[in-house]
Parts: sequence; structure tokens; C-alpha cells
Amino acid sequence: MSVSLSDKAAVEKASIENQQQSEKPESKLASAPAIGGAGLRGQSAGTTALCTVGKSGTGLTYRGYDITDLANHAQFEEVAHLLLRGHLPSEKELDDYKTLLVGLRGLPQPLKAALELIPADAHPMDVMRTGCSMLGNLEQESDFSEQLSATERMLALFPAIICYWYRFSHDGVRIDTEDQSEACLGGYFLKMLTDKTPSELHKKVMHCSLTLYAEHEFNASTFAARVCASTLSDIHSCVTAAIGTLRGPLHGGANEAAMEMIQDWKTADEAETNIMQMLANKDKIMGFGHAIYRESDPRNALIKRWSKELAQEVGDKQLYAVSERVEAVMKREKGLFCNADFFHASAYHFMDIPTKLFTPIFVMSRLTGWTAHVFEQRENNRIIRPSADYTGPEHQDWLPIHLR
Amino acid sequence: MSVSLSDKAAVEKASIENQQQSEKPESKLASAPAIGGAGLRGQSAGTTALCTVGKSGTGLTYRGYDITDLANHAQFEEVAHLLLRGHLPSEKELDDYKTLLVGLRGLPQPLKAALELIPADAHPMDVMRTGCSMLGNLEQESDFSEQLSATERMLALFPAIICYWYRFSHDGVRIDTEDQSEACLGGYFLKMLTDKTPSELHKKVMHCSLTLYAEHEFNASTFAARVCASTLSDIHSCVTAAIGTLRGPLHGGANEAAMEMIQDWKTADEAETNIMQMLANKDKIMGFGHAIYRESDPRNALIKRWSKELAQEVGDKQLYAVSERVEAVMKREKGLFCNADFFHASAYHFMDIPTKLFTPIFVMSRLTGWTAHVFEQRENNRIIRPSADYTGPEHQDWLPIHLR
Repeated sequence: MSVSLSDKAAVEKASIENQQQSEKPESKLASAPAIGGAGLRGQSAGTTALCTVGKSGTGLTYRGYDITDLANHAQFEEVAHLLLRGHLPSEKELDDYKTLLVGLRGLPQPLKAALELIPADAHPMDVMRTGCSMLGNLEQESDFSEQLSATERMLALFPAIICYWYRFSHDGVRIDTEDQSEACLGGYFLKMLTDKTPSELHKKVMHCSLTLYAEHEFNASTFAARVCASTLSDIHSCVTAAIGTLRGPLHGGANEAAMEMIQDWKTADEAETNIMQMLANKDKIMGFGHAIYRESDPRNALIKRWSKELAQEVGDKQLYAVSERVEAVMKREKGLFCNADFFHASAYHFMDIPTKLFTPIFVMSRLTGWTAHVFEQRENNRIIRPSADYTGPEHQDWLPIHLR
Repeated sequence: MSVSLSDKAAVEKASIENQQQSEKPESKLASAPAIGGAGLRGQSAGTTALCTVGKSGTGLTYRGYDITDLANHAQFEEVAHLLLRGHLPSEKELDDYKTLLVGLRGLPQPLKAALELIPADAHPMDVMRTGCSMLGNLEQESDFSEQLSATERMLALFPAIICYWYRFSHDGVRIDTEDQSEACLGGYFLKMLTDKTPSELHKKVMHCSLTLYAEHEFNASTFAARVCASTLSDIHSCVTAAIGTLRGPLHGGANEAAMEMIQDWKTADEAETNIMQMLANKDKIMGFGHAIYRESDPRNALIKRWSKELAQEVGDKQLYAVSERVEAVMKREKGLFCNADFFHASAYHFMDIPTKLFTPIFVMSRLTGWTAHVFEQRENNRIIRPSADYTGPEHQDWLPIHLR
């Protein structure tokens, strides 16, 4: 290492101070596990032109556009176009883009066969990870000039991958993924999953949801994709790494965990009793707080509105009220706010999406952010190779095996 | 972000200075691509008790043991035991360990079927990545208490995965991976690959090679595994992410690239002429220099010795002489030393290992380091979530699509 001592000391000091500062808000998280290691919190690991988190406005922008504008007005395909192709599309461009994506829904036969080998009790994120990895064998990105087409192929195909496996393993049905009846990704996913034409309301919710999950700066899965990209690996490796990283309960699994927590509570009062007990026990409560946001998560209000409307549509008297009460209790008791995941749980549930498919939806969306970051990393690359502080034993003398 | 301005400035200053300092040796690399972004060089991203790189002694230690002692005296299974189980085994422990691993060589039927779906022209690292990911569906690590058994299953199975696919897709043969004729991993790999009993010399070289590649602190693939682990994801996700990251030509692909470069040069003089021309053209020359080591890579002498002995065994009059000349010219012209990869190319070649399987051997070995790091990360976890410097557009007003 060629760091001078004074520089190294400065880095270490800053690192320790950052940690102290950022630990304070995080330690409020009832859900936080035993904490240790810097986690690089507050340290810059590179540059991006894609996203700001926790800065001006509502705190979340994609290429300068406020998340509120995008989530309230844009179709997800507009957001994908913005992230992957650099600008919001014109009407003509959007039409062409949807037509392109609709034409890419055919699963290669060996990929279907591989999905059929995966049992029904597999973790759906393992299925996504394997589906993406298998696709990389069959349609290898042989050159970075293919990065956009390889990405848009994944964008079109990810709903097909998860639904093909799910319907085959759970219902014994081989679905026709080349169905063109739904032009947009969210509607297509619902159609493949349920075999029913989704309502306009559900399609709107999916546009909002997919937009909210599309991009979030150097979160762990995106950072994993960039670390992978920094060795100049192929795009399927980068996305496979990101899927595996998103799978963790501290990252993408939060909306599923929130659903599992609230689904059995019959009334708001019962929810309050349980949450108070969980807080007393210092149990994990998923869907609250955030590593970066300090006051609120701008995505919460945007999905919560749709959760409420869906609750009315299905005549729910339970889950939405439970969710609102949990939100209020967590605010009152811990000063903690809902993050993007909490009201996603009820919203997805009202649309009859099985809980275990919540995180794969996150994948379908975040794919756009991951790959846009891979493109960026490749544009201005240096291999991501940090150092570590050594805490192990000093020199050990070799002992031949018969003397041990 | 909760970093005060003064701290942030200190981090940024240190980061810039580190970069300038470490850029100097790296810019000598004829193989370096356009460089930019900090790459976290010289910044600590956590702690480890597993490994030192570039410190005292020869500069590389595993749990305090010098790489020279390990590479010259240990069987790879001793090193795996050291990394995964914390200490060098006694004779009894080593025997038991080998017996355990030999018993874990059976490929699940659906994994065989999936491997048979992958075409012969696939990238072998895509096959490894997919094989590992598929295994995660079939034998899920349902709890961290299973991390060691899941890891040792992968350790036993990775040679089987790559050889099963290779022999099926290239030779149309379904090999019996439960073959017990070779007790050690390296010999087993050679047996599965060639169907011939490997010589004692080849088995010794494999012990050395697998030991040299087993662990290397926070290199990019290991760091990807730790980022993945930091979300508390499962071990197959962590290893899948690492395989995808190792696949990149700036990381695991270097020994293959070195082989492709030197294989057509008939004499040392021809090699010198070509290298001089490549240097004049500023072409990439793989297998030289290192992000951390400044004077030499301690692994080079250890594998070079075996390359020389293998050259004598096969009566080589060409490849070893070419390799030595390339080493001399790079030293003379650029002051650059061979890293671990350069003489691995000729060593593997002399053992009749197809070039495209070089990096999968790296996977079989580095699996031990990756997973030992995952265990460490889980012991003392904080999600790895750095920040980024924003370089994109400021606030953009939303424009309805018909006005764009």
C-alpha cells in the first residue's frame, strides 16, 4: 500500500467519525442487527450522474427528475428509458420502446427447461438469480457494445422468468410468455402471474411501484453490480451479483418481512399491542428507517396513497388499518418513519401477489438502476479493490503435520 | 448523508492523494484501461483476520502463515481447513477432512440436467456461476448454521460442476463425479477432466496452485462476496456474486489472457520482438504488476518453479523460454514483475488443461477465501452501503410526454 501515514490517519479518523455520526440515527432501528465494521457509510466510493438520495427537494431524483413527478406521472417504461437511454422519451420514442420490449418476451427453450428443474420450494430470488445467470450462457454479452440490448432483453424477460417458474412449479402450467396483450411491464407481470387481464388501477400501481424501486444510488446491490463491473466482467454477471445481494433481508427482503409481520393481525389495536411487545423485546421490525434518509423516505407517501386506494377497491377492513397503526406507533415510540417497503407490502397483497414474489418485482425494476450504474462504471472504470484492517494473528511458524 | 463538511473534505483529500500515489505504479501497467474513479484504493473497507497482503515477510500470509511455507509444504486441503475451520489440521483431522470432501462429490440430478442444457461455446465462468446458483436452489442454506457444510459441499462439487459440463458439451460423455480414486481436489479435477490418473508431479503442482489462489484479502471478488453477505443474503448468492466478479479480465481472467498472448510465440527472441512492439503500441500485457504489491508478487516464484519442472517433464523447448524472456523484458523495460497469473499460464498448459478452464480452477480455490470472508462478515456485520459523488444534472422540471 502506498498511502502515506498522515493520509491514512486522516482516512481512518474521518471513517471513525462518520461511523459515530451515522450510527446514531441507525441505532434507533429496532430492526438493526449487531452492528460492526464501517460499512463504508458516508464514504464516497465513486461518482454517479444517475441519482441523488437525501439531498434537495423530496430527496430522491433520477437524472435530476424528482421522484414525486416520476411516480405520479410517468409510466415505468419512461423511467427505464430515462435511466438506460439518458432522457425521458417522446411519445413516438415511448411507443417504439414498448414495442421493442414486447418483442423480447420469448424465453429460450433451454432457459425454460432449466426453470422447470427448479422445485416449488426454492427461494424465488434464487430462481431469478439462476434465470439471469443461465440467460448469460445462452445469450452472452460478447462485447460492451451489446450492453444496452442485453439489458433490455433482461428487462423484457425477467417477469417471464419468474412467472414461468412460478406457474410451472406451483400450477403445473407452461405459460406462453410471448403474450402481447399487455404492453407495459407491470401489467404483463400481473397477466403472466394470474392469467387475468389486470385492471387499470392495478396497472397504475405497478407503474408507480416499479418507478419507486428503479434506482437508489450506491445501495448494496447496486454497489455489488459496480464492484463486479469494475473487473470488466459481463453484464449478466453484474446483474446476477446484484440479485444475490438484493436477496438479503437487510435489503430487498424488507417488504416480504413486513407482510409476514402484519398479515396475521386482525385489528389496529391488536397490531399496536404486538408492536409494543416487539419493541419491548427489541425484535426486528422491518420496513422502517433508512441508512441514508433521516426525516422520511419520499417513496412512502407515493405508494401509501395507492395502498389506500387498493384497500377501498377490495373492501379491506383490516390490513390497511393495521399498517397505518403500525406506522403511527413506530413514529410515536421510536421517531421512525416508513421506508419504501412498508406500504408496498399491503399494496402488493391487495393485488393478490404472493408474498414470496415481492422481492422479484423489486428485481424487475431495479434492473434498470443496476445496469445504468454498470454502464457508468464501464465509462470511467477503475477496479474496486479496497484494503482491510488486519486483526488476525502475527507470524505463525510452519509446523509439519506430524508435529501438530 | 450525515458527514460534516470538514470530515468529508478530509476523506476526499485523502482519497485524491491516495489515488495519485497509487496511480503512479499502476500507470506503468501496459495493460491498464482508461482509469478513473477512486476504486477505494488504499481505503479500509472493514477488518479481516484471514490475510495480509503486501506487509511483512514475503508479503502474503493466511491466518499468520507465510504463503511460502504453505505453498511449499501444505496440501490444499490443509489450507482449506486453515481458512474455513481456523487452524491447520492434525493428520487425523486432515484424513477426516479429505474423507468428508470425497463423500460430497455427487451432483444432484437436476444440476446435471441444467449443466447439460448449457452449450459448448458458453463461457466456463458463466457455467460455474450458473452451477453454483442452481445448487443454491436445490440445497438452500436455510440458516447461517449451515454455512460451513454448504461451503464444503461447494468445495467438493465445483470440480465436478465444471468437468461434468465440459466433458458433456465437448466430448458427449456423462462422467461419474463420485469417483473416489483421487483423494485431493487438484488430482480429482485432473482425473475428471482427462479420465487419466494424474502424475504425482501434477498433483503437487495443483496443491501449490490451489494454495496460491486461495485467499487475497479484499480483492474485488472477495469484496463483492462481502457486500452481498452484508445484506445477510445466503452463501450461494455470495459465491455466485464472487464468481461473476472474478470472471472479469482485470481479475481472474489474467492467466488465460497471458496464455493467449504467449502461445503463438515460437522462440524467446520472437517473444521479445512482439513484447517490444506491444509496449510501443501501449497494448495490454496481462500477468504483470499488481494493485497492492509494489516490488514483487510472492506467488510468482512459487509457481514459476513448478512451471520449470513441468517444462522439463514434457520436454518443452518453447513456452517456458518464451515466458522467461517476457518476464525479463517487462522487468527491463517497465520495471514490472510477474504476478501470480503469469507462470500459471504455462504451468497449466504443460498439464494439458484447456486455457478456458484456467479461471474455473481459480474459482475452486478462491472459494475458500470468499466463504471465510463471508463467515467473518456475518460475525460482525454492517450493511456495506457507501455514498457517491453526484455529477448529474440539477433539478429538471417534469414535462408531460406530449410536450417533449
